[in-house]
Amino acid sequence: MLSVNGARLLERINELGAIGKDEEGRRTRLAASDTEKQGRDKVVSWMKDAGLKVVVDRIGNIFGIWETEENKDKKPLMVGSHIDTVINAGQYDGCLGVIGGIEVIKTLKDAGYQSERPIVVGAFTNEEGVRYSPDMMGSLVYAGGLPVDEVLKTVGTDGTILGEELKRIGYEGTVEPGFLQPEAFVELHIEQGPIMDVEGVKIGAVENLQGIHWQRVTIEGVANHAGTTPTNLRVDAGLAAAKINVFLRELVKKSGGVATVGCIEHEPNAINVIPSKAIMTVDLRNPNKEKLDADEKTLAAYFKELEETDHVKISSERLTEFDPVPFDEGIVKKIEAAAAARGLNTRRMTSGAGQDAQMMARICPTAMIFVPSIKGISHNPKEYTPDEDCVAGANVFLDVVSEMAGVQQK
Amino acid sequence: MLSVNGARLLERINELGAIGKDEEGRRTRLAASDTEKQGRDKVVSWMKDAGLKVVVDRIGNIFGIWETEENKDKKPLMVGSHIDTVINAGQYDGCLGVIGGIEVIKTLKDAGYQSERPIVVGAFTNEEGVRYSPDMMGSLVYAGGLPVDEVLKTVGTDGTILGEELKRIGYEGTVEPGFLQPEAFVELHIEQGPIMDVEGVKIGAVENLQGIHWQRVTIEGVANHAGTTPTNLRVDAGLAAAKINVFLRELVKKSGGVATVGCIEHEPNAINVIPSKAIMTVDLRNPNKEKLDADEKTLAAYFKELEETDHVKISSERLTEFDPVPFDEGIVKKIEAAAAARGLNTRRMTSGAGQDAQMMARICPTAMIFVPSIKGISHNPKEYTPDEDCVAGANVFLDVVSEMAGVQQK
Repeated sequence: MLSVNGARLLERINELGAIGKDEEGRRTRLAASDTEKQGRDKVVSWMKDAGLKVVVDRIGNIFGIWETEENKDKKPLMVGSHIDTVINAGQYDGCLGVIGGIEVIKTLKDAGYQSERPIVVGAFTNEEGVRYSPDMMGSLVYAGGLPVDEVLKTVGTDGTILGEELKRIGYEGTVEPGFLQPEAFVELHIEQGPIMDVEGVKIGAVENLQGIHWQRVTIEGVANHAGTTPTNLRVDAGLAAAKINVFLRELVKKSGGVATVGCIEHEPNAINVIPSKAIMTVDLRNPNKEKLDADEKTLAAYFKELEETDHVKISSERLTEFDPVPFDEGIVKKIEAAAAARGLNTRRMTSGAGQDAQMMARICPTAMIFVPSIKGISHNPKEYTPDEDCVAGANVFLDVVSEMAGVQQK
Repeated sequence: MLSVNGARLLERINELGAIGKDEEGRRTRLAASDTEKQGRDKVVSWMKDAGLKVVVDRIGNIFGIWETEENKDKKPLMVGSHIDTVINAGQYDGCLGVIGGIEVIKTLKDAGYQSERPIVVGAFTNEEGVRYSPDMMGSLVYAGGLPVDEVLKTVGTDGTILGEELKRIGYEGTVEPGFLQPEAFVELHIEQGPIMDVEGVKIGAVENLQGIHWQRVTIEGVANHAGTTPTNLRVDAGLAAAKINVFLRELVKKSGGVATVGCIEHEPNAINVIPSKAIMTVDLRNPNKEKLDADEKTLAAYFKELEETDHVKISSERLTEFDPVPFDEGIVKKIEAAAAARGLNTRRMTSGAGQDAQMMARICPTAMIFVPSIKGISHNPKEYTPDEDCVAGANVFLDVVSEMAGVQQK
């Protein structure tokens, strides 16, 4: 059974992970920055080392293409992820999928295999969305979700313009995004959550990606003296916010989603004044669109109920709304089968985070392979996936890619 | 039946209320400030107009004393309140009690009555505690609760020293606080809460003052990704804070106290991150010490329960602890009887706010008379007590004082 070069895979993860560290050891490679350029250069050198044709599109996505005279007219199998990071990031998020993809192709090529269709590994621009909004930008543009000319004008949090920065670092390509129509897309990624670590699962077969609804909820009460106002005459915006938080948790326990009240603010926020206003965010997610919509409706009905019982006024502002993304059942089954063949236990997973794969799912059958994140830590220097889990994931990746691309020994 | 001069009472409330207004009409007379000096001068002029002997003690409390050769060796009946204000204040809080006290004595004197014991009206320094801490300072010092020499060194929020400011405005007296040992103390005051307005009650017979426990509660959870962390693996400090708020409300519904979560803060306070920390204040009040202590114990037990169920860590820091103050039942009954005799409905009341009377209760039998605050608004320019209610309160005050001091026609 062919396997990837685990030592090389791990060495490259560390090598890319060393790029963008500041004096204090904080790793940051924001999209189209100087440090990300260094990372891009490294990725391109590895693609060239594997004998791949390197193409950069107008939004800065980098593709390493393995095609031959025999298969160049067939739709390619595409794999990939991203190498941009958040501020003070870990070294696995995104990078594992790009390095793993190069490793898979290099392994196949070096072993003298041939493929029925081209295999392409992509490194998509600005997945994290820290410097330029929105996130998953490169894959979204590639899938036709946003016009490239508009997106290149995006102004960053630092006042820079994305198109100018891409040009400056030498990664403004001339090819139109979407120039290759993939037959399918597969992404290897760390879980970024604790489930596989807690359950001792080695390979996650990611069958879907949660829908995300964000809203900012404003509750208006009446500021009054905390000592002189009896309970029955209070209109306590903070208490209503607390009730919403508790209600949400019970709601998603039933629906199987997750809910988070990340931000809260009281006005006047004084110890002896009943809050006249509470502003809170609600992050509601569910892999099932019907359940997500139903939870949101139930929540809205609860707002009405609270207006009656607690005499507050509640308004809600939509901040984000992404539908859940179902992945391709056929690919998910291939991932399960490949893991089983290597004696690795698997679990169906939902991606809780956004991914390039969710954008590629717009244009072709798509799925993801997850490997564990110890303690679920991510977007943090403590992000960690054990070496053996990285290698196991890359081998399952190799097997799935081989089957889907029709790889054979010559 | 003798009655106060209602027109004069109301005119003086307006006259004192006009002092300390800035260009924008915001009324502010912070303790020992230039504007409060103007208010003090006005009060002293009214005391002198009533033929009272004016004495200022070392902490700046002003007393107007009506005594005669016949009664000067008897313990006086003392009444009074304060004329310092919060920032952007109403015109009734405190002032009604001082002006009402002067009015009661002037009414008795002008009608040719005599009194078995001296009647003293006091205007206590710095009841509000906005510029200098603590609040109820003048009455607390008068009652022996703090040493005057220490308190005079108090540094204000504006960097000034209380003793120097009192000297500057000409109200650093030479008499020791506590120089008169009162037989009893009665304070006329606005409710500062909504109960009497809502229930249509004209006279509140204040039987006690709530105990106040303040604590700052810190809940430690674990910051994690709002999307990738399943509900059963969350340690959500914000949710625990919400549960505490909801629990508190149910707790005081049973005990008859009030509870307020005025301040709250989440860390990191990001929309898609489970809060790792929540810091909240708890303001817990009850007129009954046993119930207040019991509520606090139940709350502490709930913290332990949450540590088990929600895996958070909870710590609490004591900020303030005042025991409840029971007032004198005999005086409370006199207030009820006097109101009934004038055809005014009454209600036993608990003072939700701190008062000079709570300090005077340390050294003599004490009670308070409340008149309604429309909509419970106080510490606000919209603070309002209808004219007829002010006059009604002053007349009940007159009757109670007359009975307690042994007032008779000559």
